[in-house]
Amino acid sequence: MLNFDYYNPTQIVFGQGSIARLDSLVPADARVLVLYGGGSAERNGTLAQVDAALGQRTVQRFGGIEPNPSYETLMEAVALIRREKLDFLLAVGGGSVIDGTKFVAAAVDYPRDPWHILESFGSEITRALPFGSVLTLPATGSEMNNGSVISRKSIQAKLPFFSPHVFPRFSVLDPVTTFTLPPRQIANGVVDAFVHVIEQYLTYPVNAPVQDRYAEGLLQTLVEIGPLALATPQDYEVRANLMWAATQALNGLIGAGVPQDWATHMIGHELTVLHGLDHAQTLAVVLPAMLDLRREAKKAKLLQYAARVWNITEGSDDARIDAAIARTRAFFEALGVKTRLSGYGIGADSIPRIVSQLEAHGMTALGERQDMGLDLSRRVLEASL
Amino acid sequence: MLNFDYYNPTQIVFGQGSIARLDSLVPADARVLVLYGGGSAERNGTLAQVDAALGQRTVQRFGGIEPNPSYETLMEAVALIRREKLDFLLAVGGGSVIDGTKFVAAAVDYPRDPWHILESFGSEITRALPFGSVLTLPATGSEMNNGSVISRKSIQAKLPFFSPHVFPRFSVLDPVTTFTLPPRQIANGVVDAFVHVIEQYLTYPVNAPVQDRYAEGLLQTLVEIGPLALATPQDYEVRANLMWAATQALNGLIGAGVPQDWATHMIGHELTVLHGLDHAQTLAVVLPAMLDLRREAKKAKLLQYAARVWNITEGSDDARIDAAIARTRAFFEALGVKTRLSGYGIGADSIPRIVSQLEAHGMTALGERQDMGLDLSRRVLEASL
Repeated sequence: MLNFDYYNPTQIVFGQGSIARLDSLVPADARVLVLYGGGSAERNGTLAQVDAALGQRTVQRFGGIEPNPSYETLMEAVALIRREKLDFLLAVGGGSVIDGTKFVAAAVDYPRDPWHILESFGSEITRALPFGSVLTLPATGSEMNNGSVISRKSIQAKLPFFSPHVFPRFSVLDPVTTFTLPPRQIANGVVDAFVHVIEQYLTYPVNAPVQDRYAEGLLQTLVEIGPLALATPQDYEVRANLMWAATQALNGLIGAGVPQDWATHMIGHELTVLHGLDHAQTLAVVLPAMLDLRREAKKAKLLQYAARVWNITEGSDDARIDAAIARTRAFFEALGVKTRLSGYGIGADSIPRIVSQLEAHGMTALGERQDMGLDLSRRVLEASL
Repeated sequence: MLNFDYYNPTQIVFGQGSIARLDSLVPADARVLVLYGGGSAERNGTLAQVDAALGQRTVQRFGGIEPNPSYETLMEAVALIRREKLDFLLAVGGGSVIDGTKFVAAAVDYPRDPWHILESFGSEITRALPFGSVLTLPATGSEMNNGSVISRKSIQAKLPFFSPHVFPRFSVLDPVTTFTLPPRQIANGVVDAFVHVIEQYLTYPVNAPVQDRYAEGLLQTLVEIGPLALATPQDYEVRANLMWAATQALNGLIGAGVPQDWATHMIGHELTVLHGLDHAQTLAVVLPAMLDLRREAKKAKLLQYAARVWNITEGSDDARIDAAIARTRAFFEALGVKTRLSGYGIGADSIPRIVSQLEAHGMTALGERQDMGLDLSRRVLEASL
């Protein structure tokens, strides 16, 4: 096992009816800004439940945070908070709203141009407004971690930042809020959570059996419940297990003490910026090709993945790895998420541009051993066509 | 899945060499009391490493915290802290030292007789001195939870308390500190961690696949590494995995959203108080008989345990349950921990006294359904002879 630090102070309040708990979770004298995305939180009644729980507190709203939340939009929220002297943020939504709220919380009192938060990956944040979240879309894990990914339309950039100051104080996870999600968002959430686990698991062995088994348990659970979450959208138990699995997939726990990869994510971010693919679509495209091309570096863990997650134990090493990658691809496809660039209308002519964006963003030494240069990223993209 | 709250703000600093990190973890102006047990922390050099890391801070020591830490001893530490105006506690040891430090931290400013902390199970604690720990014995999980068990010799009581105010601020886990532990303490630690998982897993199903698989992963890991930890005491990787598994076994995570039992622990506490058995010895005695007598109430999970932890899939339900219990008993025995009261010189004549102690301590409705009265506890003890 590698040495590690693990710290995660976010309080999770989980279960049906838990939005009412906001009254005790948000300070009684807070001046609250509720941040949300499109109109779905309004239409499905979640915002009304939030309003009821917040009672007599001063509450303002900031809607319109888009998927892949943008610097441009979020800076409007920053201006509103400064103008109205608001002091507590409540994100109501999925990973984009929570990621955006983290940026807003850190930007309000940031002593420089807030875009510097992304340029320095959050390393110079010294404080942030307190905030909580009401999660409505199981996918990114943002509700229980200290990371965020922000896009800037004007320069076609999508970059992450991290800071111990942007853990949510609390996150309310009520699976009922997910009943009305479109199938595409549920499918994306399953793929996103699955690939989060893979990025922290499919690297090289360091004799960390607890972390390995936690990761495998999450993957097995996602394989079981992913199709059910689409087939029976009002099944509380299925949605509850999806919600908890997605949170566990990226809260720091399974990645503590083990190598981490994240190359699939970094290549995927460029696909979103340049071609507008959903985040999970980019992961579904890049991951199978990535695993195929990295099969030597990842061989031991790929064989373990084949055996423990997919019960593939027969055949040569290469045959078992081939079968595990095929099962992974088929799982994504069965959820309705296409796994080839051609499925999204992207051809080989787009690849040089994607590679040059990777170079521009410093993504020239990716992977768990930082040995994945631009040439290999290009080959992964070619194999994803 | 059941509704749940999960909150755990303890920072874990894990790995070889991490004791030196105390210099950044303990406030620079802290007046520190280092609490420890017997002389082993002195003999094996851990206290010297702690002293070196604490540098020029004001540091006093309080040694002699016994296994099953006693109110009587701990109140001496409380008096010392008040007298010397110390303001930060550092526990250096295993679960007994950390449990004791939690009590001391809560007792120093407690407005009533501190024994009331136990009488009210911690529910009236409103603050505690800040403290951290340097763990030297993987077993109880106290390094990353908010529970503590304190004994009072004068009235033969051993009672737990819990409070969000007694989470350690940090815990330093350096597996090297465990290299010199006696085999009996390692064996006890493996059994203790194993039974902690069982108490949160072997109840009744609530459709919580993430929690189930996490629990099974910990059990499988303990089964694998328990014998190795005894056979090769200087194997860093084995001790690291034991340390992390034991912490995970009781930090609230695997028990979030599922029923919990704890009847084995409550009966075990009385065996320690009346007959002086090590905590883990009491668990090894009570658990097999408990599982046997509760086989109907626990049937579904016992069959899952048999299949997933012990790979027992053949035979009738009862045959598989019998086999799983037998494997559990054999696992404890192979570690050198006896699983019968007779092995510790305790006969049937002792049982009435144990049962009357359970009654005196209010342990009359134990188990995950609070349906286990004194008669069933007596039958468990009879079956443990």
